[in-house]
Amino acid sequence: MYSTKGATRVLFSNTRRFSTGTQLRAPSGLKINPDRLWNTLHETCEWGAAHRYNDGPTDTGMARLTLTDEDASVRKWFATEVQKLGCALVVDQMGNMFARQSGRLNSPAPMIAMGSHLDTQPRGGRYDGILGVMAALEVLRTMKESGFQTNYDIGIVNWTNEEGARFPKSMCSSGVWAGAIPIQEAWDLRDIHDSSVTLRSELERHGYLGDITCSSDPTTGYPLGAHFELHIEQGPILPETGRSIGVVRGAQGYRWLTMTVHGKDAHTGTTPFSARQDPLLASSRMIAASHDIAKKHNALASTGIIRVPSNASTNTVSSQVTFTLDIRHPQDSVVHAVQDECLKAFDTIASQDGKGVSFDWTLDTDSPAVKFDDNCVASIQAAADQLVGREKSMLMTSGAGHDTVYTSKHCPSAMIFVPCKDGVSHHPAEYCSPQDCALGTQALLEAVVHYDQFRAESEGPK
Amino acid sequence: MYSTKGATRVLFSNTRRFSTGTQLRAPSGLKINPDRLWNTLHETCEWGAAHRYNDGPTDTGMARLTLTDEDASVRKWFATEVQKLGCALVVDQMGNMFARQSGRLNSPAPMIAMGSHLDTQPRGGRYDGILGVMAALEVLRTMKESGFQTNYDIGIVNWTNEEGARFPKSMCSSGVWAGAIPIQEAWDLRDIHDSSVTLRSELERHGYLGDITCSSDPTTGYPLGAHFELHIEQGPILPETGRSIGVVRGAQGYRWLTMTVHGKDAHTGTTPFSARQDPLLASSRMIAASHDIAKKHNALASTGIIRVPSNASTNTVSSQVTFTLDIRHPQDSVVHAVQDECLKAFDTIASQDGKGVSFDWTLDTDSPAVKFDDNCVASIQAAADQLVGREKSMLMTSGAGHDTVYTSKHCPSAMIFVPCKDGVSHHPAEYCSPQDCALGTQALLEAVVHYDQFRAESEGPK
Repeated sequence: MYSTKGATRVLFSNTRRFSTGTQLRAPSGLKINPDRLWNTLHETCEWGAAHRYNDGPTDTGMARLTLTDEDASVRKWFATEVQKLGCALVVDQMGNMFARQSGRLNSPAPMIAMGSHLDTQPRGGRYDGILGVMAALEVLRTMKESGFQTNYDIGIVNWTNEEGARFPKSMCSSGVWAGAIPIQEAWDLRDIHDSSVTLRSELERHGYLGDITCSSDPTTGYPLGAHFELHIEQGPILPETGRSIGVVRGAQGYRWLTMTVHGKDAHTGTTPFSARQDPLLASSRMIAASHDIAKKHNALASTGIIRVPSNASTNTVSSQVTFTLDIRHPQDSVVHAVQDECLKAFDTIASQDGKGVSFDWTLDTDSPAVKFDDNCVASIQAAADQLVGREKSMLMTSGAGHDTVYTSKHCPSAMIFVPCKDGVSHHPAEYCSPQDCALGTQALLEAVVHYDQFRAESEGPK
Repeated sequence: MYSTKGATRVLFSNTRRFSTGTQLRAPSGLKINPDRLWNTLHETCEWGAAHRYNDGPTDTGMARLTLTDEDASVRKWFATEVQKLGCALVVDQMGNMFARQSGRLNSPAPMIAMGSHLDTQPRGGRYDGILGVMAALEVLRTMKESGFQTNYDIGIVNWTNEEGARFPKSMCSSGVWAGAIPIQEAWDLRDIHDSSVTLRSELERHGYLGDITCSSDPTTGYPLGAHFELHIEQGPILPETGRSIGVVRGAQGYRWLTMTVHGKDAHTGTTPFSARQDPLLASSRMIAASHDIAKKHNALASTGIIRVPSNASTNTVSSQVTFTLDIRHPQDSVVHAVQDECLKAFDTIASQDGKGVSFDWTLDTDSPAVKFDDNCVASIQAAADQLVGREKSMLMTSGAGHDTVYTSKHCPSAMIFVPCKDGVSHHPAEYCSPQDCALGTQALLEAVVHYDQFRAESEGPK
């Protein structure tokens, strides 16, 4: 799609596009402040710092679960900081925080947003989500101090309860914003450790139950003109391939199944193999088969949970086993093909040993593949080309879910990945180097500036 | 070993043996009372009846855990019944109950015992252990009412805590008697639901902490001249082959291992297979491999328990998995060969997928194969031949552990198996038909009479 000879040409297949034949836009000329970014990120991680893993001052993980006192503290700080920059701050009924800086055009059109989340896992790290919001703030600070104005309004979103760790629904409030999750269902989510506390009661307690509807609807909610998210990769591909920027063009589809395999409990000493109905043996063969099938399709199939009854014992064949199956691929057709092939293989396995077993399954999650907006992706690719060149960046598909997956349903969206050490995430030792944090933030700045210019050209008067 | 042409010859390879060339002894002429046996068994199952599974009066399982009030009730009843028959009752320091009927010779030699246990699993049935004690009582009642006297003293043993379900050590008190388990360790066992209660404190509470040492030592304990145990098979071999009596010549060896497979937690969506260290995938392949290896050796290998960390989730590769491995075969050399081959295969599997996993293992139980006494086995085979013929009986190796495994270390011992429906045991619906209960009891009677005659011939004055 890209020619790198002479003037780089950006070609897209959809209707709204970068003008064919125009030269690659020049860099913004702005330079984010790496130290300010790093210090701000770690200073604010004092709210929720936990799980020390080494001696350094920042060598802890985080436990800043959504809408806890620590989360409320960092939200309050964030509100103050964006208001200092002159941003207008709006909070919707899910506590999503929208900070908006006016653009040169004084257009009423929805702002170009840089969004992510400030909440963490209970044993999380300092970068997942947090980097995206801190980078966005650094972009606005950099623009402010240099007197730079985008054409359109630009801003930041802090999405509530992205992790789903305290109130169990991940990407919760971008999901409500996108119309994918009913707000009442989200409000009714209960704290996994204290069922007397709901997400809504915590929004109220902290004063984050805003007036505005949580929606992308332009008349009642808070629509966005675009959504860019900088995030750590949470996987090993960038570090292992020596790349520093991932240009994320979509999110893979995934389906989560729970398999229940039924057999018959029997004494392991007195029951010959021929007389057994052993669900754990069958489940083992199924898990191995699902891996081999997925591998053949260049897809992923993973089992994270397996359970035998609580009264299981060394010398008893279990009566029942349940296990999860998580199938992923950037193309939905492949996800479905892997699932079909697995179920067919499971049928064969079920009759393979002894007197056979039976199984049934439920589909717990069906998340089709998402393709991000070509122009947003091109803006990020242009930024990456300027900053690190084509060899040090790569087109990627996100393996995990992110708020951007939901925003992409209602506004042009894309993501930037930066490497995290060894691909470790959702862990106290999660780490993104100061250099990579800074590089990602600079890429975010360049990408939104590119996109703003493109938008002005394609939407503005000719 | 047996010739069925003309006079049946009984040949053995060990030194103390049935006299070669003598004719098969005649049946005792005694006939046990099937109704009395059946009614007594089910009447006494009122103490501990639980887990109704159908409408009939005896359609419940049992929850008569050792040294509970229900167990104390049936012990008290048992003591009364054997004393009514004129037996001397001795209780040792583990609460083992020895009821002894004098023989014709008035010999001080240790009695020929018929033993089993009156305790059950928490969700157990009405036959496991109970049938063996009730059959022994029916044998003594039958002898008493017909005025039959054995040469040597004959009696019954009710072994304490065979199941190990309440105080977690199975075959506990026959193990102490055999010197395999230190009495202090057994006394100190704690109720799995109430750690303030020990086996010893319950023995004291119910008055079953006897004076006599729990030992086979003739000077301090209660030695036995032989031990015969009637038991349900707890497996499907007899019912599936249409046999009614199993002549049990030993118990298979078994080794219990716990495998711990170490990997690294990783996001299932963002971590390519090539970067994973997935212990659940490896464990699955190991479980399947262990089955295939055991099958090749005509041995058994079974996994009853598998555990992932409690924080496991659908979209996370587990960091660690543990599973049990139970390897069995009548020959210890085969048990060892299967273990060695499994560990070798596990080594290969550990490096097979992605970045590989590591594993370690512990040996939790090592129970070598046991060969029962040839003369006891021959006595049972002779009884089976008389009662059902060679086609309806079979030589077997016990797959499970029994008190007889321990007694066999210190006195000639063997077991009789009778079929239980579908091989189901340790389950409320465990069932042995009235006909099979009666047949097994008659076989027990004939076997002890045979053995008593053999003993008189081989030990008595020529």
